Amino acid sequence: MALTILFFLYYLSSTALSASIITHLPGFQGPLPFYLETGYVSVDEENGVELFYYFIESERNPSEDPLLLWLTGGPGCSAFSGLVFEIGPLKFVTAEYNGSLPNLVYHPYSWTRVANVIFLDSPVGTGFSFSRKPEGYAVGDISSSMQVYKFLRKWFVDHAQFLSNSLYISGDSYGGKVVPVVADAISKDIEADQQSRLNLKGYLIGNPATGLKVDKNARVPYAHGVGIISDVLYELIQKNCQGEDYENPVREQCVTKLDAFHKFYSEIQTSHILEPKCAAASPKPEDMIGDRRSVKELELHSPPPHPALKCRGTVREWQRCNSDLAYAKDIPNNINYHLSLTNKGYRALVYSGDHDLVVPFVGTQAWIRSLNFSVVDEWRSWHVGGQVAGYTTAFSNNLTFATVRGAGHTAPEYKPEECLAMLQRWISSRPL
Amino acid sequence: MALTILFFLYYLSSTALSASIITHLPGFQGPLPFYLETGYVSVDEENGVELFYYFIESERNPSEDPLLLWLTGGPGCSAFSGLVFEIGPLKFVTAEYNGSLPNLVYHPYSWTRVANVIFLDSPVGTGFSFSRKPEGYAVGDISSSMQVYKFLRKWFVDHAQFLSNSLYISGDSYGGKVVPVVADAISKDIEADQQSRLNLKGYLIGNPATGLKVDKNARVPYAHGVGIISDVLYELIQKNCQGEDYENPVREQCVTKLDAFHKFYSEIQTSHILEPKCAAASPKPEDMIGDRRSVKELELHSPPPHPALKCRGTVREWQRCNSDLAYAKDIPNNINYHLSLTNKGYRALVYSGDHDLVVPFVGTQAWIRSLNFSVVDEWRSWHVGGQVAGYTTAFSNNLTFATVRGAGHTAPEYKPEECLAMLQRWISSRPL
Repeated sequence: MALTILFFLYYLSSTALSASIITHLPGFQGPLPFYLETGYVSVDEENGVELFYYFIESERNPSEDPLLLWLTGGPGCSAFSGLVFEIGPLKFVTAEYNGSLPNLVYHPYSWTRVANVIFLDSPVGTGFSFSRKPEGYAVGDISSSMQVYKFLRKWFVDHAQFLSNSLYISGDSYGGKVVPVVADAISKDIEADQQSRLNLKGYLIGNPATGLKVDKNARVPYAHGVGIISDVLYELIQKNCQGEDYENPVREQCVTKLDAFHKFYSEIQTSHILEPKCAAASPKPEDMIGDRRSVKELELHSPPPHPALKCRGTVREWQRCNSDLAYAKDIPNNINYHLSLTNKGYRALVYSGDHDLVVPFVGTQAWIRSLNFSVVDEWRSWHVGGQVAGYTTAFSNNLTFATVRGAGHTAPEYKPEECLAMLQRWISSRPL
Repeated sequence: MALTILFFLYYLSSTALSASIITHLPGFQGPLPFYLETGYVSVDEENGVELFYYFIESERNPSEDPLLLWLTGGPGCSAFSGLVFEIGPLKFVTAEYNGSLPNLVYHPYSWTRVANVIFLDSPVGTGFSFSRKPEGYAVGDISSSMQVYKFLRKWFVDHAQFLSNSLYISGDSYGGKVVPVVADAISKDIEADQQSRLNLKGYLIGNPATGLKVDKNARVPYAHGVGIISDVLYELIQKNCQGEDYENPVREQCVTKLDAFHKFYSEIQTSHILEPKCAAASPKPEDMIGDRRSVKELELHSPPPHPALKCRGTVREWQRCNSDLAYAKDIPNNINYHLSLTNKGYRALVYSGDHDLVVPFVGTQAWIRSLNFSVVDEWRSWHVGGQVAGYTTAFSNNLTFATVRGAGHTAPEYKPEECLAMLQRWISSRPL
């Protein structure tokens, strides 16, 4: 689907913060059973860049529970999709599309059961975030991370009561690449100014991108391990592609073999290898990778969803993910940020839905191992409801890795109960 | 659960064949919408061994469609479980156990849609098959295979109208070890006596045991590929267990590492790695491996199920699988039977549910590859309903291998529509 202009801006004020408390949403019966606030924060006054957020207070003890900033991946996937598909207290009711807005129900395994969560539409161009000048959209890993940090500082001005809560930066997929960059910026300011009031404790990331070639190269051994490619093809790729970047191979022999691999890859719903691949409803099947049919249909027939959200710009075509962002991946990889943060003692949780072919656990396990931290909790199963929920291992420097059994790229979407238990244990500093 | 005497024999006649046509079953509403015949065939007159069978005619064209003899695994798992859980036209209605017999409904993806199927309680001691003398129970791979063949010859005496149908020997799990032995015996008689009227065309086996150590050794690379064990443990097993039989390791270093592996293995529902492990309802959790809770509960509270089946012996405690058989695994491996049959031109289909940790596709793929047949259809996806149903490759000598995506040890139980499509294409000699 070609994207043209996303936003028609009617309300051009540039106050630092404009928050609204949302008590009702179309499609949700009765008042929302949690505290939802939405608003904009200006993060680039020159170009008029404003980031949109959803803030949901913990349903347990907002003043004591940690505060999570959640960055959905893409780059360009809206915070609302993170909220409604992954870790938030709402979910769509699955139903045949009949032209009306979808219904929403309360989702009991929301991470807001135990944490205050800010869902942020970042980078600019994502969800309801916008720039008044076209130049404002020219962001990348570095500048958008700085904007996220600026957002946080300004957000705390009006939410000072949360300054003492433990702060965790979090996100999944491409959000996982940006999370350590944001956290690192915060940590540097804390070092420089011991009076900094941001109470950063660490970060958590799911099926995260790092920018290392292992993220994508791992698709080959993973696909082999689960039987998507044959032993023969796997051995040929190993032999012919040593040292190559599998996304941009150079040697002819390797290119041919990876072409064969990509044919298999393209047939699979990569975000969960056992899910059906939904292409039928899309005008361009190749756009559908990783998408959910219901949302795609919502977009295709889109009235702007949720007018109650009081967005400053009116979105003509709301999109779950804006893949046309002029976004610069200007941090080749974030491994030094991981090293810096964990060496400083910040806590880190890295989790992987184990049925994800986009960023398979195989690669995540490999880069974590390459950090050469000593193992303090050997690979073992962790449990929810008496069943193996996945496997975990912990390293020195407060780094925990966990897989989520049977989950895909966005693990909490597939295994909500397990992922909530994982979060709850980890933020309480208990073993998984 | 300790087993004592399984059968109280009231009816001691030893006629060669006693068949009943079953039109109604308790728990099934109305008359059965297919032709079901059950009966006994004497296969060892000296000891009074009689094998029980269920014969269901093809719902398409019984006189033209192939005839399958189906052997459920174990050894000792009843043909009824193969019928009701796997490839037959009935299935249990899942419901809370309330003391009554379970309800049965018609299963539309039955293999009897396109084939006549004999479900055989073999070896003796399985299901409703019995021996009048205790000595009759002392069977093994060789003698039970000969009894299966004898059963077939005698069955055809009273069902001569099926002699011209294409005959396929089939089964899964341990049944897959016996299938080629039975087929080979038939093929040898056909060679010796060109007048033999058995119209053997080939055989098909699912997640089959071969007796080769690769069947079970493959659990380690498979568990690694799907993330059940860590890279570190996998590498240690590779290093320390070269050449070992992983079920009976010798070297101390290898034993220790495999102990660690077995700890992980024992926590998983090995017949489908994503299913919950059902141990709660069992008095002895270790008995539960591979079992389904509903059936185990049925056994524990067991009235003899389906008195309408008119079994000659009255079964006091019906068991899905009798694991107390005095059964001799006296064929170390069946690979020569595979070689013999495929070299003679018999067609073979070997399929693997790819989420099975009992006989993982990894090992099956390995022994098939070791046959060194040339590839005539390279590894590719096969499809049902526009989705990837699995992967397949075909070799010279009419040998086809296929995986069933997302299926467990008993593949048709998990992916019935896909497996019926697979069968239908293969028996029609079409590519999957």
